[in-house]
Amino acid sequence: MAKMKGFAMLRIGEVGWIEKEAPECGPLDAICKPLAIAICTSDVHTVWEGAVGPRENMILGHEGCAEVVAVGSEVKDFKPGDRVLVPAITPDWNSLEAQAGYSMHSSGMLAGWKFSNFKDGLDSELFHVNDADGNLAHMPEGMTLEEACMLSDMVPTGFHGVELADVQFGDTVLVIGIGPVGLMAVRGCALRGASRIIAVGTRKACVDVAKQYGATDFISYKNGSIEDQVLAMTDGKGVDRVVIAGGTVETFESAVKSLKAGGKIGNVNYLGSGDYITIPRVEWGVGMGHKNICGGLMPGGRLRMEKLGSLITNGQVDVKPLCTHVFHGWKHIPEALQLMKDKPADLIKPVVILDDEIKF
Amino acid sequence: MAKMKGFAMLRIGEVGWIEKEAPECGPLDAICKPLAIAICTSDVHTVWEGAVGPRENMILGHEGCAEVVAVGSEVKDFKPGDRVLVPAITPDWNSLEAQAGYSMHSSGMLAGWKFSNFKDGLDSELFHVNDADGNLAHMPEGMTLEEACMLSDMVPTGFHGVELADVQFGDTVLVIGIGPVGLMAVRGCALRGASRIIAVGTRKACVDVAKQYGATDFISYKNGSIEDQVLAMTDGKGVDRVVIAGGTVETFESAVKSLKAGGKIGNVNYLGSGDYITIPRVEWGVGMGHKNICGGLMPGGRLRMEKLGSLITNGQVDVKPLCTHVFHGWKHIPEALQLMKDKPADLIKPVVILDDEIKF
Amino acid sequence: MAKMKGFAMLRIGEVGWIEKEAPECGPLDAICKPLAIAICTSDVHTVWEGAVGPRENMILGHEGCAEVVAVGSEVKDFKPGDRVLVPAITPDWNSLEAQAGYSMHSSGMLAGWKFSNFKDGLDSELFHVNDADGNLAHMPEGMTLEEACMLSDMVPTGFHGVELADVQFGDTVLVIGIGPVGLMAVRGCALRGASRIIAVGTRKACVDVAKQYGATDFISYKNGSIEDQVLAMTDGKGVDRVVIAGGTVETFESAVKSLKAGGKIGNVNYLGSGDYITIPRVEWGVGMGHKNICGGLMPGGRLRMEKLGSLITNGQVDVKPLCTHVFHGWKHIPEALQLMKDKPADLIKPVVILDDEIKF
Amino acid sequence: MAKMKGFAMLRIGEVGWIEKEAPECGPLDAICKPLAIAICTSDVHTVWEGAVGPRENMILGHEGCAEVVAVGSEVKDFKPGDRVLVPAITPDWNSLEAQAGYSMHSSGMLAGWKFSNFKDGLDSELFHVNDADGNLAHMPEGMTLEEACMLSDMVPTGFHGVELADVQFGDTVLVIGIGPVGLMAVRGCALRGASRIIAVGTRKACVDVAKQYGATDFISYKNGSIEDQVLAMTDGKGVDRVVIAGGTVETFESAVKSLKAGGKIGNVNYLGSGDYITIPRVEWGVGMGHKNICGGLMPGGRLRMEKLGSLITNGQVDVKPLCTHVFHGWKHIPEALQLMKDKPADLIKPVVILDDEIKF
Repeated sequence: MAKMKGFAMLRIGEVGWIEKEAPECGPLDAICKPLAIAICTSDVHTVWEGAVGPRENMILGHEGCAEVVAVGSEVKDFKPGDRVLVPAITPDWNSLEAQAGYSMHSSGMLAGWKFSNFKDGLDSELFHVNDADGNLAHMPEGMTLEEACMLSDMVPTGFHGVELADVQFGDTVLVIGIGPVGLMAVRGCALRGASRIIAVGTRKACVDVAKQYGATDFISYKNGSIEDQVLAMTDGKGVDRVVIAGGTVETFESAVKSLKAGGKIGNVNYLGSGDYITIPRVEWGVGMGHKNICGGLMPGGRLRMEKLGSLITNGQVDVKPLCTHVFHGWKHIPEALQLMKDKPADLIKPVVILDDEIKF
Repeated sequence: MAKMKGFAMLRIGEVGWIEKEAPECGPLDAICKPLAIAICTSDVHTVWEGAVGPRENMILGHEGCAEVVAVGSEVKDFKPGDRVLVPAITPDWNSLEAQAGYSMHSSGMLAGWKFSNFKDGLDSELFHVNDADGNLAHMPEGMTLEEACMLSDMVPTGFHGVELADVQFGDTVLVIGIGPVGLMAVRGCALRGASRIIAVGTRKACVDVAKQYGATDFISYKNGSIEDQVLAMTDGKGVDRVVIAGGTVETFESAVKSLKAGGKIGNVNYLGSGDYITIPRVEWGVGMGHKNICGGLMPGGRLRMEKLGSLITNGQVDVKPLCTHVFHGWKHIPEALQLMKDKPADLIKPVVILDDEIKF
Repeated sequence: MAKMKGFAMLRIGEVGWIEKEAPECGPLDAICKPLAIAICTSDVHTVWEGAVGPRENMILGHEGCAEVVAVGSEVKDFKPGDRVLVPAITPDWNSLEAQAGYSMHSSGMLAGWKFSNFKDGLDSELFHVNDADGNLAHMPEGMTLEEACMLSDMVPTGFHGVELADVQFGDTVLVIGIGPVGLMAVRGCALRGASRIIAVGTRKACVDVAKQYGATDFISYKNGSIEDQVLAMTDGKGVDRVVIAGGTVETFESAVKSLKAGGKIGNVNYLGSGDYITIPRVEWGVGMGHKNICGGLMPGGRLRMEKLGSLITNGQVDVKPLCTHVFHGWKHIPEALQLMKDKPADLIKPVVILDDEIKF
Repeated sequence: MAKMKGFAMLRIGEVGWIEKEAPECGPLDAICKPLAIAICTSDVHTVWEGAVGPRENMILGHEGCAEVVAVGSEVKDFKPGDRVLVPAITPDWNSLEAQAGYSMHSSGMLAGWKFSNFKDGLDSELFHVNDADGNLAHMPEGMTLEEACMLSDMVPTGFHGVELADVQFGDTVLVIGIGPVGLMAVRGCALRGASRIIAVGTRKACVDVAKQYGATDFISYKNGSIEDQVLAMTDGKGVDRVVIAGGTVETFESAVKSLKAGGKIGNVNYLGSGDYITIPRVEWGVGMGHKNICGGLMPGGRLRMEKLGSLITNGQVDVKPLCTHVFHGWKHIPEALQLMKDKPADLIKPVVILDDEIKF
């Protein structure tokens, strides 16, 4: 059995380099080697907060792009040597949930999320992709590795918040949180025809990018409640739509209070703690205000990668401003992860280009 | 100024007969006299719980049918003597909210609900209808007064729960609460093609009607939590859809726990108390389970009355089993209201046929 | 290589019994033997009109139920001996089209239709099913073989017409054609809450079943144009929705003329000839009447079979009246096919129970 | 009875200045004087082709902005002196059609279009607006009169084509026709997240603006059929969506042939002649290709004006490039109309600022 090296969560609170058996390739699968990876806030949740539960010696990473090393007998569209986009979510496309339109929940709620959750992730010499034809996409010509990494999770997650909120021409939208997902939500709102985008966040690095992406107004937590500021900005009317891309279970209270009757809330924020999301009864219209609340994991898979990738190659979405910290070489992965944990003021996303070999 | 007699909420906790000025008829309006009225649970909330806030000498009633007495200069389709269906919700059809598709929130959240809320209701010699052409409907031939009364609120509210839950062919649906609205939700689920309808409730009078309307399974609060029973009944999979037509702010917890990822909850229950609706974080997919939550006031207006009325006259919906207690004569209104407050075991809805004159 | 016997289209216009190589089972596939099959009008189109183009020695049949004989290494939910529902449409679930929500067009327009089109069909000792986990469903207990056969195509196709027409509570719907698909469309309209269902057709056997399924009015081609009759029946207003389940490319003209502005037409009729569907310009609102036109192949796959199957086992849909001619024994397949070609007055669908062995 | 002067269609083929009675103001109405008007291609159809039928002495014009001169007793939000946006479509908001979501067809197919169709238009000293609160919008501060004129018809019509085609993130869209409506459709596609926009048209003035608005590829009728060019550009796959904003009844053939299965066609082109729109049977999937076809008149009314107006004032939509010919003074209206009839190479839209008084 072949061995491979990788960077893993050893147990809750501890990470390190390990060697373990390389994955096997089933008839529909591909084995890939990563070309670049990006660090996600949820890696921090996974490792230090145990957000997905206890894990031992699990290779980390669900954002990246790769080169195909091997494919199974049934794979038609990919071959060794192909450079590929890799979505964070890789559904079982023939599952009942996918047939019902919710591929991200294939074989169980959230179970389309496999990398660094139910199986080893991307931060190793080799990683396994289920259903290669359904889940990989060819990397478009001219796309950089950094850009490709943003397509795994940041673009599809931020844009899904916009889809869940169902933004329409001329809407006023509140985007809560302007980390990398929230920034992509801002860009997505602009690309769906919102006329006014009110962003909640204060970090200068993020505010600057949010402006570039189309945010028209800004709110700081420090100046009072979100809802008070939103209502003041909108003559007491509230917003048409809310995208939640940050905060906690309590953030929904502000969202509901900021929203018009007949409005919609789209949540893509991973809620890591708290027993209950609390919906304020009166402002939710005593149950009858038609303030729709939906939260959803990003859709993954090949089509999604191709569609969103085309927005980058055609110039409608510029993800380069997200990639504030770009490293070269495997040895920088721990440093990049630590950076995400520490969140210095100038950080949006750390990317590691894997243009060498693992040595340890 | 003409005077009229009617049955009113005098203040929170007190009702009685009063005389007050008759309403005036604007250019788009109609003045009607009721032919029959029905009592709603929300009348009980309004009077004894102060659910809509303090009111003084407000005529009660928002369910009924009527005869037109006068119409404004701009009314085209109705004339004195016409017998009409009267929806509980009478929107301002040219409002921005109605143009956005949410007429029930015209001019403010829930503000399409005017009768016995923002203005006098139906339980008096005369009542006022805004936008007669947009809000009244001609009573179909052969429809009884009792049937017509069920069209004001019970049918459209119960059916709206089904619309919000977006029931599809072959779905398994959980209907929480089988009072008159819940019963109509059961009938609505059957009429949208649900294959399995699990109803929560135990009152024999209601269970019998629920069976007749298409409920296939029953759950009693007494046998443990709703979610435990639902999961046991569905091999741990949960249901596709939930309609909430009863319970409290805590009922949503059971609804979310009973629901599949990708499912939808439609609430039409008026939530009378509690600070927060509590959504369980883990079973809501840590924010990403695509369990959509929407609660909404029924759509009112003329088209809705015509469409739902046609289901009664064509025989698809039989509302007669709802009308368990039918009285004749104005003097029975207080008794009917008290009945709704007391909820005896055999009660579903009390209706009062107003075939005499008010005397006091 | 194993051999199998079956009933085939030898070439356009000619059918007969043949022997050919048995199919092989890939890792995701199943090999099944049919328990019963039904004849479809499209078999007649295929054989005698060459509707899908020239074919040689292609086993016929795409409606039936079966027993699993073998499964591939990756199949998880089925094993030899399982009795299964078999949809006429068996998509490639990981295709881009399926990811876009149109699994029936996986790998090309209409290419989800494989049986007796791109590969051998069900009328032989053994047949091949791609993606067994995604496309088969366990036959529910208590379902008869005849009922199971109606689930392959008649129920999902008729019901899809209703889905495309987007029938809502209280709608008046025109169903054009009341052969077996049209009859299922009638039942589907009733199950989606239509209040009035106007059916076009005159054969007594079909009219009787249409009434049982919920048709409220009937139109005969012999009494003038469809649109004239519809407009006369609806005070000149037209219908809310149209389902087309019969006729020709010219039928759309009547459909558009019968339809209100803002209405929808759902077509599930296979249009076998004619260069153009003709949409009348003026009645289509000179291009701006919001009369939506959609035609679509039925969705297939496992979830669909399970959902629609549950409507039969729970009693909401009774397909037995469709099965007017039930034969026992392989030798009756040619006779059943001929019957479908001849369409005697009392025929709706012929079914052949395959409870013996092929001998020739 | 007050008199007013205006520019009218005297009869089919003839225009001129006339004097006629000024309109009266009902309780919900407003009387306005135009501040600027724009000429529409449909004015040319109306006058010289008799497209809406014979008319005598009907004041022309349905695009413009205005100042309120008088309002009815029931009007709440407007008063004399207010500067207002005026939509080309002014629905009866309480009609059954508006309640069904199709306000543009209120009181009959297309009957929401009243100006210079069923009643006098804007090209006169005074004009009448039904339901002022529902149909006028306050002109935003800083918006120019030219910009305001583009909001009456060009922006809402072009954008509605995009809505009907249901453009999604990353779609490839074909826009047929790049006159002013098609140009707005191009901008609308870009604002809904299309990644590739293929525009059909060759006039340099239009091509330049289309590029500025986001078109990525161009097709000329002169280089062969649209479908051949589209298929060549898309590796034979076709486009996801089509917006038709020009051409004839035959244009739909190219649209269907250029479109993927599961795609959608949105038409906003007024089809002035021809008996039938012709849909090619085979490429429409023999009736089952899920190629949805919808054509619709723009939604009008106040909310629409406010929402789309906010896109201009916030900078997402720049309509100034459409206004290629701007005149000052009433006397230029005939010249502007003639210009629209002649369509010189550099013309997109003629606008007339009405900053003087009519003299004749």
